[in-house]
Amino acid sequence: MWHYRPPLRDMRFVVEDLLNVSEDWAVIPRFAELTGDLTPQILEEAGKFAVQTLAPLNAPGDLQGCAFNAGAVTAPVGFADAYRRYCEAGWPALACDPECGGQGLPQVLNAALYEMLYATNHAWTMYPGLAHGAYECLRAHAPEHLKAVYLPKIVSGEWLSTMCLTEPQAGSDVGLIRTRAEPQADGSYAISGSKNFISGGEHDMTDNIVHLVLARLPDAPVGTRGISLFLVPKTLTEGPNPGSNGVSCSGIEKKMGIKGSATCVMTFAAAKGWMLGDANRGLAAMFVMMNSARLYVGLQGLGHAENAYQNAARYASERVQMRVAARPPSSATLPASGADPIILQPAIRKILMTLRAFVEGERALGYWAAHLLDVAEFHPAAERRAWAHDLVSLLTPIIKSFFTENGFTLSSTALQVWGGYGYLHDFGIEQALRDSRIAMIYEGTNEIQAIDLLVRKVVADRGEKFAVLLDWVRDEARACQGLEQCERFGTVLLKLLDDVTRVTTELVEESAGNPEIAQRVSGDFMRLSGLLLLGGQWARAARVATPHAADEFYRGKIDTAAYFFDYLLPEAGHRLALLGLRDAPLPWINPAAG
Amino acid sequence: MWHYRPPLRDMRFVVEDLLNVSEDWAVIPRFAELTGDLTPQILEEAGKFAVQTLAPLNAPGDLQGCAFNAGAVTAPVGFADAYRRYCEAGWPALACDPECGGQGLPQVLNAALYEMLYATNHAWTMYPGLAHGAYECLRAHAPEHLKAVYLPKIVSGEWLSTMCLTEPQAGSDVGLIRTRAEPQADGSYAISGSKNFISGGEHDMTDNIVHLVLARLPDAPVGTRGISLFLVPKTLTEGPNPGSNGVSCSGIEKKMGIKGSATCVMTFAAAKGWMLGDANRGLAAMFVMMNSARLYVGLQGLGHAENAYQNAARYASERVQMRVAARPPSSATLPASGADPIILQPAIRKILMTLRAFVEGERALGYWAAHLLDVAEFHPAAERRAWAHDLVSLLTPIIKSFFTENGFTLSSTALQVWGGYGYLHDFGIEQALRDSRIAMIYEGTNEIQAIDLLVRKVVADRGEKFAVLLDWVRDEARACQGLEQCERFGTVLLKLLDDVTRVTTELVEESAGNPEIAQRVSGDFMRLSGLLLLGGQWARAARVATPHAADEFYRGKIDTAAYFFDYLLPEAGHRLALLGLRDAPLPWINPAAG
Repeated sequence: MWHYRPPLRDMRFVVEDLLNVSEDWAVIPRFAELTGDLTPQILEEAGKFAVQTLAPLNAPGDLQGCAFNAGAVTAPVGFADAYRRYCEAGWPALACDPECGGQGLPQVLNAALYEMLYATNHAWTMYPGLAHGAYECLRAHAPEHLKAVYLPKIVSGEWLSTMCLTEPQAGSDVGLIRTRAEPQADGSYAISGSKNFISGGEHDMTDNIVHLVLARLPDAPVGTRGISLFLVPKTLTEGPNPGSNGVSCSGIEKKMGIKGSATCVMTFAAAKGWMLGDANRGLAAMFVMMNSARLYVGLQGLGHAENAYQNAARYASERVQMRVAARPPSSATLPASGADPIILQPAIRKILMTLRAFVEGERALGYWAAHLLDVAEFHPAAERRAWAHDLVSLLTPIIKSFFTENGFTLSSTALQVWGGYGYLHDFGIEQALRDSRIAMIYEGTNEIQAIDLLVRKVVADRGEKFAVLLDWVRDEARACQGLEQCERFGTVLLKLLDDVTRVTTELVEESAGNPEIAQRVSGDFMRLSGLLLLGGQWARAARVATPHAADEFYRGKIDTAAYFFDYLLPEAGHRLALLGLRDAPLPWINPAAG
Repeated sequence: MWHYRPPLRDMRFVVEDLLNVSEDWAVIPRFAELTGDLTPQILEEAGKFAVQTLAPLNAPGDLQGCAFNAGAVTAPVGFADAYRRYCEAGWPALACDPECGGQGLPQVLNAALYEMLYATNHAWTMYPGLAHGAYECLRAHAPEHLKAVYLPKIVSGEWLSTMCLTEPQAGSDVGLIRTRAEPQADGSYAISGSKNFISGGEHDMTDNIVHLVLARLPDAPVGTRGISLFLVPKTLTEGPNPGSNGVSCSGIEKKMGIKGSATCVMTFAAAKGWMLGDANRGLAAMFVMMNSARLYVGLQGLGHAENAYQNAARYASERVQMRVAARPPSSATLPASGADPIILQPAIRKILMTLRAFVEGERALGYWAAHLLDVAEFHPAAERRAWAHDLVSLLTPIIKSFFTENGFTLSSTALQVWGGYGYLHDFGIEQALRDSRIAMIYEGTNEIQAIDLLVRKVVADRGEKFAVLLDWVRDEARACQGLEQCERFGTVLLKLLDDVTRVTTELVEESAGNPEIAQRVSGDFMRLSGLLLLGGQWARAARVATPHAADEFYRGKIDTAAYFFDYLLPEAGHRLALLGLRDAPLPWINPAAG
């Protein structure tokens, strides 16, 4: 009864109508040869893989979970076989460089692929989920001898990767890590320490696992400026002593969700590793991986919300309870008497429209960010590359936190459509709720993302780059002027832009004297930014759809844009009100009292 | 590490300082003899039972769940034994009539007891959770021969009870039920049909189970006016053929949470039953039970949020990560260098203050409603009884939906404090999140509660009773005037009352021509009402605390009131804005499109 239909029509709308990617692709040598047929072909194949191979493993994988036995971890039945098929189809190589064996295709297609993988089986997708980030990190920071050995294996999918940051005492504060790296005579390092929350730290999907590990050199400064990055394979395949490498898994966690994904406690006992990037500059090297990872975590929220929307809409059209007070104009096919499908209930229509407006708006925003990654890397014009790079750095924390918070809250909103059935495992939505919850936490909690946005990326440069992002929204708002169906969207956005500009300026100025202020309001600033950007995307969608309004699909876009502006964008006004609270007292808490 | 400390100090503040119950008790003959020591004694004993007996069974019960084997259901290890101790201590009889073997104590103490039971073990408390409602229902509607047999068993706890409404095709729409009741020669009925989502439908906690079953007589009208209520025991103990009674459990559900509570599919095969109340008036008879049940479901949300608050505050004071930008004035005991406890982070302080302000405000509101139940039943003045009755009928849907929504969202908010650990079963909060989610669904979904409030209880009487509830808030607001610490709370509330009065009047008037309008905005009206009432409670709390502000506990009340008015009450403005959207289009949804 839980069933996923790849949202191919909307994906094409975003890629072709909204982003108009072919314009950028035409001037990027790497993509100049791509034909118009390619996008729908790839999306269709990716959708088939997700529906046919991953979806059937999702609920069983949740019930079975992973098994840990004497250091070995077994993923749920079918996971390894699905991964084999994933590699055979060449999906790991989709957006990798042809020089490394990749297909050299655009990031936006990889984003669409991953949205579908996460939607159908979040737990399974955790295993390949970090591979692209590891690929980026090695390509940017690995010496040639490591690239030669490891990149082809990662690109082909033969070996999977992990990101080993967290230690029990060092979560959000990565500066507290203690894992040590002792230089060896052969230029390698002996890595020793414990890491936890390592997704895919051990499993039975691939023969080897490539760990990217943060550790400290013997003479490293304290804090984040004394952390280096190392590549540590589970199994050594080169050098004088091939074989196992002092990397072991000492247990897996019992979690709320993504139970088919092995969350491992890892021990490194003088494991052989090699440095990536420069000494004590490991965090910067790893951020290459984390920025990409954060964007993809945002897509998890999108995937869950899309799946919740589809299933809730279908269930609501089938479930018959109570008579409604008003019916649609053409209700010939409805029962003449008795109860109606609950999809006609106003409360249910609001739930479904809220889901749809967030999902489609986020798809537009998320795919834009993925496309900007390619523009930032490959566009021939340096100015355009820099522009895209700046926008991506701002969009990353917004997409990570805004999409994942929405992914969870919208799954919960959708669950209400099923009533009591929503609470049962058999109906799928309760697993989506549990699985989606992790995305608000990992890769930097949403609170950390909000501080990253406001403190490090807006206040730190006095709002300069943020103003460029606002310019993009302003351009969209102005483009709506004079168009009958969209004019009011532009008017609302221009007013909101004024308010956002004003409050940003105030925050920048007040932060000079009081560094706590930005931290206090960072969560509200994050929501405000996400809503404003979705407003820009919906204005654009309505404008692009207007000439085709005779077609039901495009008319639906205009209606959903109106719903977003009427019912959802008002939250921006609420966030602005909360952002005005900077002088209100915020008590210190004594947990022993009361 | 998950640990519950009964919030006895705050409970006493609510019962003694805020509600000043002794004033009402003094004029109610049944309570006139109660001494001032009684409240703290009972609360302390109840807290001990919850902490010592129930809390240790909570996480193991979640992991083990219930077992179903050939019609028999086994609750998790320890559940039956805890129930035996619960009965031995006399807790089931707390608020029951002495004539039926009860202790005749006030409802507000029963509410405090249940808040602690739900906080420590929601799943376990599902078993006795409906007993008081069944007691009320039998007392009001059972013929004497049934009262004589069943009431003492329910009051002593020897037999447990269920509420059998739902059928697969009849959830929110109870009018669709098909279970049949055939009159028998001896005045009893033969009940046949299937029911699902029956909490405690079968278990190993008591020898007998008293099912209250909705069914249709052979000649009953269709819909809700053709439903009658029947008492159907699992085991017949009287009459010519004692023994099992054609009631069987055909399975239990696999759920997201409250896994230690057996959610049963029940089959009645010509089971012997007796009618309660009048023929075809079963819904009215059962509403006696459901109104009380809905109030107690609200307390589930309160219990979860209280436990989440306590544990998050303690964890935040122990977890050390990162340096903060600002520290409390007297921070002598803090580490001079290195990382700080995260309880000093502004984002964490906002999370914890939000939890505290909702929890303590809800306790004041929820206990007030419980106290009003007693005033409505026992107060010597008819006018005062009617006033309390009207208020309870309005407060019930608000407390059910507002508290349970907050219970879930606040549990999720609290979970962020733990970071990745919050997602692990070992830390307790993820179970709270899963367990708390059901309360938004059962006993009428929160969407149904919102419609009950606005359509049936506000619009239907043109807002007359609602105006009486607003008068209570207005009295609180006016009482703040002239008091330095509270004046602004009163001013804000008076302005908000004007807005709420205006929008309510508009809704009443517009609903005459368009019955859909109230359904569209009912969810926003519900949030608005809940926030306004909490505002009234916080104004009262601040006013009552002001003379004692030298004491840390009372000063904390004033600070938390300020936090509520500064940070949380602004949501009311947002809801008012959304309530102004009555003319905005709300599309019809075609799940096959797009």
